Amino acid sequence: MTHTTIESDDTKDLLSAAQVMKKIRTAQERLAGHARVTPVLTSTTLEQRVGHAVFLKCENFQRVGAFKFRGAFNAMSALPREQRERGVLTYSSGNHAQAIALSGRLLDTPVTIVMPHNAPEAKLAATRGYGARVVLYDPDSEERETVAASLPDAARMTLIPPFDHYEVIAGQGTAAVELLDQIDAPAQRTIRRLLVPVGGGGLLAGCATAVKALAPDVEVIGVEPERADDAARSFRSGRLERIEHADTIADGTRTPSLGVRNFALIRELVDDIITVSEDDIRAAVYFLFQRMKIVVEPSGALGVAAMLAGATGSPSASGVIISGGNVDNTLFANIISSS
Amino acid sequence: MTHTTIESDDTKDLLSAAQVMKKIRTAQERLAGHARVTPVLTSTTLEQRVGHAVFLKCENFQRVGAFKFRGAFNAMSALPREQRERGVLTYSSGNHAQAIALSGRLLDTPVTIVMPHNAPEAKLAATRGYGARVVLYDPDSEERETVAASLPDAARMTLIPPFDHYEVIAGQGTAAVELLDQIDAPAQRTIRRLLVPVGGGGLLAGCATAVKALAPDVEVIGVEPERADDAARSFRSGRLERIEHADTIADGTRTPSLGVRNFALIRELVDDIITVSEDDIRAAVYFLFQRMKIVVEPSGALGVAAMLAGATGSPSASGVIISGGNVDNTLFANIISSS
Repeated sequence: MTHTTIESDDTKDLLSAAQVMKKIRTAQERLAGHARVTPVLTSTTLEQRVGHAVFLKCENFQRVGAFKFRGAFNAMSALPREQRERGVLTYSSGNHAQAIALSGRLLDTPVTIVMPHNAPEAKLAATRGYGARVVLYDPDSEERETVAASLPDAARMTLIPPFDHYEVIAGQGTAAVELLDQIDAPAQRTIRRLLVPVGGGGLLAGCATAVKALAPDVEVIGVEPERADDAARSFRSGRLERIEHADTIADGTRTPSLGVRNFALIRELVDDIITVSEDDIRAAVYFLFQRMKIVVEPSGALGVAAMLAGATGSPSASGVIISGGNVDNTLFANIISSS
Repeated sequence: MTHTTIESDDTKDLLSAAQVMKKIRTAQERLAGHARVTPVLTSTTLEQRVGHAVFLKCENFQRVGAFKFRGAFNAMSALPREQRERGVLTYSSGNHAQAIALSGRLLDTPVTIVMPHNAPEAKLAATRGYGARVVLYDPDSEERETVAASLPDAARMTLIPPFDHYEVIAGQGTAAVELLDQIDAPAQRTIRRLLVPVGGGGLLAGCATAVKALAPDVEVIGVEPERADDAARSFRSGRLERIEHADTIADGTRTPSLGVRNFALIRELVDDIITVSEDDIRAAVYFLFQRMKIVVEPSGALGVAAMLAGATGSPSASGVIISGGNVDNTLFANIISSS
């Protein structure tokens, strides 16, 4: 694991939170009837354990099994038809790949996806199953951006990157809008805090934008693994920090750094970014299996991990984004049998 | 496995379907605010696989992880307070035990539960965790009814058996009422069939009563394991058939025969009872894990097993009761890693 610090000068096209909120509203319209309105689950056991109300927004039940469908479908829908017909290109270690693949099928758009050869088998199979062309690369020796750019037909295709993109951020933000709409609770159960997993920061940036526009008193907290704490470091230093090849079970958070656009929104809108250990993450996946009967991938369990580990500070009624459920069966079997 | 045939003369106190439907309506009132209104999930992949609309009523998200809470809480609520204070007694291999234990805690009623010593560890622990007194017995050498009756304080307690009891049947029936209320679908997706797992028949009898009262055109089909097909045999022969110690992974269906009250309703109202293999059940548990991200115990997956195995006859938009999610972690790990 290496830590480097970069500073970005890519600030000329940054949008304001208000502009992004407008995009979130448009995204809602585009997603209506295509994305699922995922259920919000509660658990008496969980509430007793943590001492406050908890509402889990279950994006593991989203199409392709993760919130990523929201951003991918929104970004692809935003393209003019002629541009879509020339094809869409992306790179992803997992859920964004499936999300782009399914969006391509739904929007009749050919897609090419650059994926690491060691991506979870379930994710590779699902992506191919949606009809996408998959190009594998070796993450130890190649940069995925370079592999994508050097494809013979790269020039004619439109790149929809996994997180550093405003239409993607806007799509992900619709998850928080929906959650706020769905919680119909008496005053003492009104949420004061939203916990959101952080990988590249698209979900966190989008949700923070939505929450601060619609319910500005609600704290927005990012959660990431200790072993992939580039976002927490960046949040504290004010500079975009990188961690290459983070060694965490939460594969959705192994992105080396936040996106530039995401970071700008996160710095402005997010209240804190906290971290959890690998054991905390495993314990949360097991709890969600055993007590709540839902299948959650390690990255998706970060918010619950933070609550169960007591890392969230003062007890406050909380919303939690469960970001996805795409976990390899052998890994899941290992986690639940060793807990 | 032995097969015997018994005939019952216990018909003097049988209620009509209309009388049971009235009890279901009362049960709904008693359960409001106590039982969860469990979500109904759909899956594009499942619908593509089976060729018709499918609505899964997820009672694995019910309190204690199974529909059994509905019947147990309803039956206990129906008792006069003085009677509750003297205690409630039951026997159960699993989910009914937890359901009675939690109901006892909620209704401030002491409970004693006779459980087989080889019940899944998760179920024993959860039952004790709710504060119940657990009495273990050896199912190979003792009858649970006899063990219960011979407890020193058995006489003062009220027995709430797991299925052969009208308040229990009525409670379970509320799951189907709820499902019918929740499905808000265009005409071509209106359900024509409801698939219900069968163990002792409380869930099937209750759901059939509700469906035939509220949506008489909807077929009601029971599903049980081939290896525990006492209900299917009884349905065909018209006599209550028994299978002792059925060797099936679906532990919730190992009850040797239907209840007398349940059988009377099932004969009158149910359209068919079909069976699935052990492999079908495993495949369904794996599908629900991998594609739908939900944890379902083998008995709870019977309806999906029947659909995926093509055992349900003509394609028709279907409701399915997912009856529970209480599965031992080692068994679940085994099923998902060997699929």
